Amino acid sequence: MPACTHDTAPTRYLETSGIRFAYRRFGNEHGGRVPLVFFQHFRGNLDTFDPAITDGFASDREVVLFDNAGVGQSTGQARDTIAAIAADAESFLDALGLNQIDVLGHSMGGEWAQLVALHRPALVRRLVLVGTGPRGGEGMSAQRPSTAELFAKQYERQDEMWLPIFFSPSQPSQAAGRKYLTRIRARQDRDTPVSAETARAHRAAAGEWGQPDQDGYAYLEKLSQPVLVVNGSNDIVIATVNSFILQQHLPDAQLILYPDSGHGAHFQYPELFLAQARLFLDR
Amino acid sequence: MPACTHDTAPTRYLETSGIRFAYRRFGNEHGGRVPLVFFQHFRGNLDTFDPAITDGFASDREVVLFDNAGVGQSTGQARDTIAAIAADAESFLDALGLNQIDVLGHSMGGEWAQLVALHRPALVRRLVLVGTGPRGGEGMSAQRPSTAELFAKQYERQDEMWLPIFFSPSQPSQAAGRKYLTRIRARQDRDTPVSAETARAHRAAAGEWGQPDQDGYAYLEKLSQPVLVVNGSNDIVIATVNSFILQQHLPDAQLILYPDSGHGAHFQYPELFLAQARLFLDR
Repeated sequence: MPACTHDTAPTRYLETSGIRFAYRRFGNEHGGRVPLVFFQHFRGNLDTFDPAITDGFASDREVVLFDNAGVGQSTGQARDTIAAIAADAESFLDALGLNQIDVLGHSMGGEWAQLVALHRPALVRRLVLVGTGPRGGEGMSAQRPSTAELFAKQYERQDEMWLPIFFSPSQPSQAAGRKYLTRIRARQDRDTPVSAETARAHRAAAGEWGQPDQDGYAYLEKLSQPVLVVNGSNDIVIATVNSFILQQHLPDAQLILYPDSGHGAHFQYPELFLAQARLFLDR
Repeated sequence: MPACTHDTAPTRYLETSGIRFAYRRFGNEHGGRVPLVFFQHFRGNLDTFDPAITDGFASDREVVLFDNAGVGQSTGQARDTIAAIAADAESFLDALGLNQIDVLGHSMGGEWAQLVALHRPALVRRLVLVGTGPRGGEGMSAQRPSTAELFAKQYERQDEMWLPIFFSPSQPSQAAGRKYLTRIRARQDRDTPVSAETARAHRAAAGEWGQPDQDGYAYLEKLSQPVLVVNGSNDIVIATVNSFILQQHLPDAQLILYPDSGHGAHFQYPELFLAQARLFLDR
């Protein structure tokens, strides 16, 4: 058993490029596997990673969670393009000093994950892209108004915003969502919520990424790493068809879509996702 | 270890509805799992099932392979609608007398598998649909001319026709195809090749199934069983987008698409397919 878990790993800090990055690193160093680094979604911080998933992976590899610039306890200014956010992530990874990593990017984190994988083919061995899409994907230049409302809504406990965003409206999916909330609430010391300023910058970055590119999806052909693309059957944030488009244009990608699920399908089926992601990472 | 394997299980015969069905039944009866019945593809017979897959499943469940009416060593006339082919399959299953089964349907076999699952919800527990599509799916009313040519081509060893049909043109995929051919050639006593008359009837059946239906894909909403939909990244027989359409319209379906692969993706990645199909069947 690893000494530290998702709930007990200390938050550490690493200063580089004028930014103090908050991160957590835990898990089994002796599993003979490269560490898995998680790239977080829009309005997410260290508190919205799912311990069922991170602790699952941590049983036989190291796991690294971090707040990118301007997020949570990390300093610096949140950037308003995916390319600039990717550059900040690369600064963090360089300072962390790992020779090789696997990356799991969720939502907007899957967008900058694509760029980091393209820029650093020697560093990034394999890539898991969950609930995300390609540059200029379908319906990605702006959030649907009904989805934007869900991100704007105020709750007594604000993390309840994730129930309609990450899960489907069905009873089983919402019940899985409640379990996810219970899991992410377990850790005692909490991260700093994402500021309105950071959310504005990141919303602009996602919108810019969603603009159709004159080269279409050609950039994906250069992404040579094996990729596992995962999504729910009806992602209301980044439409599910974009996961199919990623699989069709990447040279070496496997696609998995789950039933009756949304933007956070891996939080709905954490055990199945873990088993399948391991099959992919450990082949 | 099961006493009989794919290569040693005797071909047995079962007479019902005026048809003598040829079948093989083998595997572990004590695994506590329902038997898995395979529905075969266009121009396939008992010899084109992959022993890497059937023996894999047989380690902890029973497996049933059969020739439908007019195929291989089964008598009767091959039918020219998917509905009629499904009715023949139901005759066979009724005579076999199993209370509950899982079904793996490949290509055209996945078309009649949908109808059998719809007609017999108490019999069919779970469904795996590989390289197939919905009624009236995209580009399914007729074979592409380039694909029809591949089915018409004569070879010294005729099973080589499957290399360009089931596998992608890449070197790794073709190498996996050669291994598949080696596997399916191992059994000594061979099944009877599919006759030209049967192929004509089945081609008509597939064409009729491919005609757009006035209700679109609405029939899929009534298919209540959990379904695993699997395909290659570029299926030249039943375009890969049809697997995505199946997943999007079935009430409880998971989709898996493999990289650099075609209509027989499960033959290209038999171990990965087995692991994932087990995760699905055994949940």
